[in-house]
Amino acid sequence: MKNVLLSGCHGKMGQVLQKLITAHPDLQVVAGLDHTLDKEADFPVYAAAADVVEKIDIVIDFSHYSAVPALINSCVAKNLPIVIATTGLTDDTKAMLPVASQIIPVFYSANMSLGINVLIKALQSVAPALENDFNIEIIEKHHNQKKDAPSGTALLLADSINDSLTKPKDYLFGRAGNDLENPLSQMGIHAIRGGSIPGEHTVIFAGSDEILEFTHTALSRDIFANGALKAAEFLLKQSAGLYNMQDLLA
Amino acid sequence: MKNVLLSGCHGKMGQVLQKLITAHPDLQVVAGLDHTLDKEADFPVYAAAADVVEKIDIVIDFSHYSAVPALINSCVAKNLPIVIATTGLTDDTKAMLPVASQIIPVFYSANMSLGINVLIKALQSVAPALENDFNIEIIEKHHNQKKDAPSGTALLLADSINDSLTKPKDYLFGRAGNDLENPLSQMGIHAIRGGSIPGEHTVIFAGSDEILEFTHTALSRDIFANGALKAAEFLLKQSAGLYNMQDLLA
Amino acid sequence: MKNVLLSGCHGKMGQVLQKLITAHPDLQVVAGLDHTLDKEADFPVYAAAADVVEKIDIVIDFSHYSAVPALINSCVAKNLPIVIATTGLTDDTKAMLPVASQIIPVFYSANMSLGINVLIKALQSVAPALENDFNIEIIEKHHNQKKDAPSGTALLLADSINDSLTKPKDYLFGRAGNDLENPLSQMGIHAIRGGSIPGEHTVIFAGSDEILEFTHTALSRDIFANGALKAAEFLLKQSAGLYNMQDLLA
Amino acid sequence: MKNVLLSGCHGKMGQVLQKLITAHPDLQVVAGLDHTLDKEADFPVYAAAADVVEKIDIVIDFSHYSAVPALINSCVAKNLPIVIATTGLTDDTKAMLPVASQIIPVFYSANMSLGINVLIKALQSVAPALENDFNIEIIEKHHNQKKDAPSGTALLLADSINDSLTKPKDYLFGRAGNDLENPLSQMGIHAIRGGSIPGEHTVIFAGSDEILEFTHTALSRDIFANGALKAAEFLLKQSAGLYNMQDLLA
Repeated sequence: MKNVLLSGCHGKMGQVLQKLITAHPDLQVVAGLDHTLDKEADFPVYAAAADVVEKIDIVIDFSHYSAVPALINSCVAKNLPIVIATTGLTDDTKAMLPVASQIIPVFYSANMSLGINVLIKALQSVAPALENDFNIEIIEKHHNQKKDAPSGTALLLADSINDSLTKPKDYLFGRAGNDLENPLSQMGIHAIRGGSIPGEHTVIFAGSDEILEFTHTALSRDIFANGALKAAEFLLKQSAGLYNMQDLLA
Repeated sequence: MKNVLLSGCHGKMGQVLQKLITAHPDLQVVAGLDHTLDKEADFPVYAAAADVVEKIDIVIDFSHYSAVPALINSCVAKNLPIVIATTGLTDDTKAMLPVASQIIPVFYSANMSLGINVLIKALQSVAPALENDFNIEIIEKHHNQKKDAPSGTALLLADSINDSLTKPKDYLFGRAGNDLENPLSQMGIHAIRGGSIPGEHTVIFAGSDEILEFTHTALSRDIFANGALKAAEFLLKQSAGLYNMQDLLA
Repeated sequence: MKNVLLSGCHGKMGQVLQKLITAHPDLQVVAGLDHTLDKEADFPVYAAAADVVEKIDIVIDFSHYSAVPALINSCVAKNLPIVIATTGLTDDTKAMLPVASQIIPVFYSANMSLGINVLIKALQSVAPALENDFNIEIIEKHHNQKKDAPSGTALLLADSINDSLTKPKDYLFGRAGNDLENPLSQMGIHAIRGGSIPGEHTVIFAGSDEILEFTHTALSRDIFANGALKAAEFLLKQSAGLYNMQDLLA
Repeated sequence: MKNVLLSGCHGKMGQVLQKLITAHPDLQVVAGLDHTLDKEADFPVYAAAADVVEKIDIVIDFSHYSAVPALINSCVAKNLPIVIATTGLTDDTKAMLPVASQIIPVFYSANMSLGINVLIKALQSVAPALENDFNIEIIEKHHNQKKDAPSGTALLLADSINDSLTKPKDYLFGRAGNDLENPLSQMGIHAIRGGSIPGEHTVIFAGSDEILEFTHTALSRDIFANGALKAAEFLLKQSAGLYNMQDLLA
């Protein structure tokens, strides 16, 4: 049984992780970190990592970007592996990761969903073979309250595809006109919005008489907690170094 | 057995119709019209309807818009029902239809595909009940040589939906930005282009926790010939009047 | 403002309805019915409808099938319209509905989701025109814990289609073999199961070179509460009679 | 410019290849093989490979399984690389391939479509990471004249997935009942049939709150000719050995 220190334990994702870890055969939460201290928990909750007295095997962090630098320093001081699933890290914090990872195992990924990363791996494994003969288009669908379009994940998929191509493609956000072309140099990215549609991303490779479509659907944000747990299982087997979801899938 | 005069018999759609009518239990082509006269056919081919000597029960026209006015006049003179499946009619020619249809049965539809018209019927039967609580979005996909976006059919679907609503929606051709809304007053229309994708149109109604999707896929242009044949069967049972695909489906 | 008596107010669907009605401009819950009486609520909760002293305009019932007969009798006695959204009614209880509806407005539907009923309406409006030339197939997808296949909703859709056809089709649950046919007399119904897939039902009409697909996706059971609310709005405008979702959509 | 000997040049796929090679910048057909000799062609057509006098760089074979053994022997004798795209090879013929490939480059694949092989590569790259937490289901769709279900390609995909798993799954062809389970040990394979639906294969990985779908659509059999051409380009760069589509994609 490995002991987890859960950072951000009272937050939304922290609570999901508590449930998942309770059902896990090899992991248990033995201490939590949170700025809220007066809430009940099945384990002691501390304000700072330095105060934790329990024996810890790994830290999983779903807190706030401002809390991450201090947490990384504590992990380095205590020689603890850490999975950072908090989003919105500053560039300064990101710059800490390669340094810390010379001493401890660090896991950090732009997107913590296993499925999105599986999709990226599949896309990068096939895009080069299709590059010269297939158009590539992305359709993403989200609920009607989403403010940004296209989604960050759609752009992550597009960038990941481009990284694998000899000739990266230009993005195009919508089409209207009477004398258009869709040259191979373009990648159309289309944002559909409506009702409470959950996050869905489809990449289409369309060639001469054959079409390939790759779709990921996210039904809830719990998938990020699932991904963090997978990351923890993976990181417990690693020595010092900086890892991400593509390493886990390799 | 009913006798068909096939106008535009040597054209692409005319040839498809020849095959379909050969397999039809109740119809036979007994004469053709075409500006090409030196091509072999299983029936006499004439340059003008006035020259036809065979007994005709119905005319099916897949010719050229410039040939349609004379053909309509001949049908009125000979008291023959006519299915006009030729596209690109001028406004002047369209204006002839209500007049001619006071004397003969005339069938004319903006889109001759049975499936697209079935889709329009379904959309109009459900859109009013969803108008206040569901976003409506259209995705259309076509091959990468198509010059116009969105497709004429996508606009026909959008207009048909709007015709059935209390508050018609504004069309939006693509989305990009960081502070967007998707109010119920908008209808997004998205044009995907790639490879040799056949014509596909999807209408999405997205509400709170439920989504309805209606999709039509056209695998070839033969569906327009199929539709014209359905129209002929229908028109043979009608008296003078102007009919379209929605009447056939009523 | 119309006053609602919410039967089964502490149940899962009852709680969803409380939230929805709180946000509704024209409705308010003024009393509840439940066998649990020691739970807090924003309104008085009674064990029996006979005890309710508040002025009620309509009853919405999401309780237990065993509680429904007494509730119907109370509604008849007090001359109150009732929306029955409870499932699993016995045949004896169902037999009460036409009788009660001679005195009060009664709303009861085999499926309370607006979307599924919209789908049924669309299917019945188009199936007759496609009957002789298109194969019909149904694909339904659900989570991997679902015990029954095909789903009750898939069978409801299939039966609804058959009700609209001249020649109802035979159901077929899967295909395997080397010398199969798919005659027009068959309707294949395919049950996909996996992970936490939400309920999805697709009806495919496949003809010569054109395909129509109609899909409904249910993202949560809240849609049944949404449907009950729509039913209440509708029923408040009706006189005595038995109504269902298809009447609401007519 | 490389010189192609096109075996089966007058067959359906041979004719498609003629068109494709005419448009190819680096390849030209300089001779053909066919049992039909009295048909016009832009190049000399022979009954046997031994008779060909033109200088040949590569042989592409889309003929009949009974003609393949002699052709392989000729290629070995003349030291010519060969792409075998003919289907239905006997086990005896297949046994010749490893032997011949010790002397000449030989390309042979169970499925010559680039897209299906890209799909297989993607599936095998992701299935192991999903094996323990995701259900796998396959849906395939074809026209209503297809006699076998599931399709050979669906079984090829299923077998390819199983080859990549630690615990291969059992196939299940349809589901009906009231007390079913869908354990991770099963892989449902569902055959939809209707109208003129072109070949479509979808593999679904369904986990907790996320779903991945991979779909291939084949719009015509021309894709096998496209694949053979890709294979020829690839094989021209190889030394003696036995190659298939997965090697081309590696």
